Amino acid sequence: MALIQAKPFRLALLQLGPLGRVKSANIDLARKAVEQASKSEPKPHLIVLPEIWNSPYAVSDFREYSEPVPEPGSSSSSSSSLDEGETIRALREMARGAGCWLIGGSIPEREISTDKIYNCATVYDPEGRLVAKHRKVHLFDIDIPGRQTFKESETLSPGDSLTTFEAPFGKIGLGICYDIRFPEMAMIAARQGCIAMIYPSAFNTTTGPMHWKLLQQARAMDNQIYVAMCSPARNKEASYQAYGHTMVVNPLAEVMAEADEHPTIIYADIDPEMLATTRRNLPVTIQRRFQVYPNVAE
Amino acid sequence: MALIQAKPFRLALLQLGPLGRVKSANIDLARKAVEQASKSEPKPHLIVLPEIWNSPYAVSDFREYSEPVPEPGSSSSSSSSLDEGETIRALREMARGAGCWLIGGSIPEREISTDKIYNCATVYDPEGRLVAKHRKVHLFDIDIPGRQTFKESETLSPGDSLTTFEAPFGKIGLGICYDIRFPEMAMIAARQGCIAMIYPSAFNTTTGPMHWKLLQQARAMDNQIYVAMCSPARNKEASYQAYGHTMVVNPLAEVMAEADEHPTIIYADIDPEMLATTRRNLPVTIQRRFQVYPNVAE
Repeated sequence: MALIQAKPFRLALLQLGPLGRVKSANIDLARKAVEQASKSEPKPHLIVLPEIWNSPYAVSDFREYSEPVPEPGSSSSSSSSLDEGETIRALREMARGAGCWLIGGSIPEREISTDKIYNCATVYDPEGRLVAKHRKVHLFDIDIPGRQTFKESETLSPGDSLTTFEAPFGKIGLGICYDIRFPEMAMIAARQGCIAMIYPSAFNTTTGPMHWKLLQQARAMDNQIYVAMCSPARNKEASYQAYGHTMVVNPLAEVMAEADEHPTIIYADIDPEMLATTRRNLPVTIQRRFQVYPNVAE
Repeated sequence: MALIQAKPFRLALLQLGPLGRVKSANIDLARKAVEQASKSEPKPHLIVLPEIWNSPYAVSDFREYSEPVPEPGSSSSSSSSLDEGETIRALREMARGAGCWLIGGSIPEREISTDKIYNCATVYDPEGRLVAKHRKVHLFDIDIPGRQTFKESETLSPGDSLTTFEAPFGKIGLGICYDIRFPEMAMIAARQGCIAMIYPSAFNTTTGPMHWKLLQQARAMDNQIYVAMCSPARNKEASYQAYGHTMVVNPLAEVMAEADEHPTIIYADIDPEMLATTRRNLPVTIQRRFQVYPNVAE
């Protein structure tokens, strides 16, 4: 089990809305929300956007709205337009303008060499450098007859790797929405020293009431980490009704902050000392029996 | 992922109480409750007793109350008293008398060859044959200052293997209490075809309100199985205040039945078709990405 090395930090989750079909308008909305969060007191260290916020959440729209996303490590926005779409350029500017770390939610990514489309989350440091990208590993293909059917795999390809990034305040694990249903991702991230798992997400009004809170509590309790999911606000005009309810859960599985379905920003203070106390009192992280079952993190 | 092969069956969970310091009185109480459950309509197929019900739940008492437990496969109660304690003999008779499968809760087991003490759960078929035994793999060592401190490892040794058993109505995974905090056990059991995880348990009035329900919901949701925990009733006179709240959760993580803290019996109908529908609608069991992370069940 990797040691948690972290400092207290403040998280801001942007439940954007109303999002529409005009990409530039969605980017403007995100920019204003990032700016608003960055000016709140105390200033947040990490700002998070929701899943697929620059495009409608619809399999028929992902290709049209998709953009190239460079590999992490690109240091500026001087890349050619072939390498980097307008949303990535805007996200770099938002992070730099805010002077905050930014999880840029997710957007449809087009990989030029293969013409494949991914549901891709990106992370920026306060200088606007792209430091990590995560392609949704588990595509959202569900079929609850008469209530919710969706098949991302009709137009998206799945990512093939797990993603963490290291910020001055700690190491963070990154997933996207349906990824949270697969416990291995959070187990591995926590055992590699992450203090939190953050999932840009967009559950719906069927799966949201059913499992949105429970999934975050389960990941937080089992791994004794912080867990956050950031959703778009619900939009009555949209084909897909996002659940909203952007939330942060602490390592004891207590809900620290929760939005309703309307546009809003929620804040939470991440406290490594609270995490350490939880692990001292309920020492499951040192009581696992890897003689009896394998460690998924190894 | 192993296929689930199961038939509908009825579960009875015995929240025994009041349990005291007289072992024979505790055995009498269990016998009466098993008999009562077996006569209910419709008749249950599987009856479950709680954790450490023939002894006080106290590290200082486990050795005094401990008994030898034979290896599964012993077919009768004709073993010598060296091989088999009075509680095991009584449990065989209870199962046979009831004509039901019986998870005999757990009792302190003394292994004669090593003089080690285990927290041991046993399972009997309706002919009174011992078909499985599970030694608690994760000992309950916690320290929440001023609220709950307990250290099973002061007098107990941990088990070194996972336990499932096959009944005509399906394959069942077995854990004991604190074992449920370690998600691998239920992950492995479910992936090996178990329809349910059942945990004889005894949470307390600190960890119970905190995580009792959430743990069962998490295991049920992530693995799309039934999960049940069977507790003793709370006894104001006891040094350890059991939480009670014996519970059954379905594969959607919905609570099907829940006791309060008083002595009672709760029943639940386990429905393989409901499990299959859950897995069809939310097909996580076939969407796992074992190219990206290991499968703990392999």
